[in-house]
Amino acid sequence: MTHTSVTGNEKSSLKPTTARGEATRQKLLSAAEEAFGNTGFFRASISDITRGAGVAQGTFYLYFKNKEDVLAELVRHMGRELRRMLAHSIPPGLSRLDAEREGMAAFIRFVAERRNLYRVVQESLFVDEQIYKDYYMDFARGYISALEKSVEKYEIRDGDLDVWVWVLMGTAHFLGLRYGLWQNEGLNDAELDAVMDFIRNGIAIRSSDTP
Amino acid sequence: MTHTSVTGNEKSSLKPTTARGEATRQKLLSAAEEAFGNTGFFRASISDITRGAGVAQGTFYLYFKNKEDVLAELVRHMGRELRRMLAHSIPPGLSRLDAEREGMAAFIRFVAERRNLYRVVQESLFVDEQIYKDYYMDFARGYISALEKSVEKYEIRDGDLDVWVWVLMGTAHFLGLRYGLWQNEGLNDAELDAVMDFIRNGIAIRSSDTP
Repeated sequence: MTHTSVTGNEKSSLKPTTARGEATRQKLLSAAEEAFGNTGFFRASISDITRGAGVAQGTFYLYFKNKEDVLAELVRHMGRELRRMLAHSIPPGLSRLDAEREGMAAFIRFVAERRNLYRVVQESLFVDEQIYKDYYMDFARGYISALEKSVEKYEIRDGDLDVWVWVLMGTAHFLGLRYGLWQNEGLNDAELDAVMDFIRNGIAIRSSDTP
Repeated sequence: MTHTSVTGNEKSSLKPTTARGEATRQKLLSAAEEAFGNTGFFRASISDITRGAGVAQGTFYLYFKNKEDVLAELVRHMGRELRRMLAHSIPPGLSRLDAEREGMAAFIRFVAERRNLYRVVQESLFVDEQIYKDYYMDFARGYISALEKSVEKYEIRDGDLDVWVWVLMGTAHFLGLRYGLWQNEGLNDAELDAVMDFIRNGIAIRSSDTP
């Protein structure tokens, strides 16, 4: 189902049929990622992108309809890269809480390393809200079904997984800002312990803490 | 301390000295909030703002240096409004967890009601990252000192409050997106219970859930 919809009609950018065409399209995407990340979507021009890619300006229109079309493709690209990175960082068979820990640390490193791509996703909210919304709604769907499996395996308790997923994504997002984008070192082990401690136990006072 | 720095030199927009001047400045700020919120900072022009405020275009420059200056002032304004709203929504003497619950619900209603102002804050990241960073860093400082007081009163356990505050802000932010901006009804009681249940207990399996 998901695959059908991803490869369906929404994918509006023009697919090249040759390897050389695909290479040019990739160069344009990389150049757009850099231009949008550095100066922002609105300040970057199509000629900034073609100059960055080392191609003539007209070449752009063989692959994309307009700037918005490149942006939409970059946001989808970020979604795929993030999923691939997470799948790679989280060894199969890990319990849910260990998987959350690995995923959180990996996400924050990813934000620090791919800051341009990350900013492009965030800016899409101001270019076309639907692109941004689809990005998070799609991610949430996959996340919920992963948590459902963990509930079935009694790795976590049951609850309103939809709400939880937005809590977890918001957590990752803001820690990504703070420890990925602004303090470029990621989370250290103690900080990651604190996050997981929060996710595991919440902030309610425990009996051992009572005076 | 906080007050000194807020009223200090960073406040770069030009302060009118008469009540009439202040009224005009407020009209310009409201018009900018609407213009930026509706079409985005980059697409909105200064003449959109003066037209919305019903003043001549030159009047703008009596109060603001440029579009960026209005944006910075709107972000500070959002910070003040949010603090005032939260102070009003959270009765004094509430325990920390009840205060978190009231604050979370109030924040999501606020995002739904003040969507333009909220979008302006988010877009500031792409206009001047420092404005955006200051907004969250300032908010985090106040939040941390509120949590410190709750730790002293044994209302919550001790921990890495800095990390926790970014978890809590990220949670509020994403729930604000999902349940404030996109599904304009806010959180219902059951959803709010789920959030608080998460914050209170975390997602770890509890002994009562073991098979």
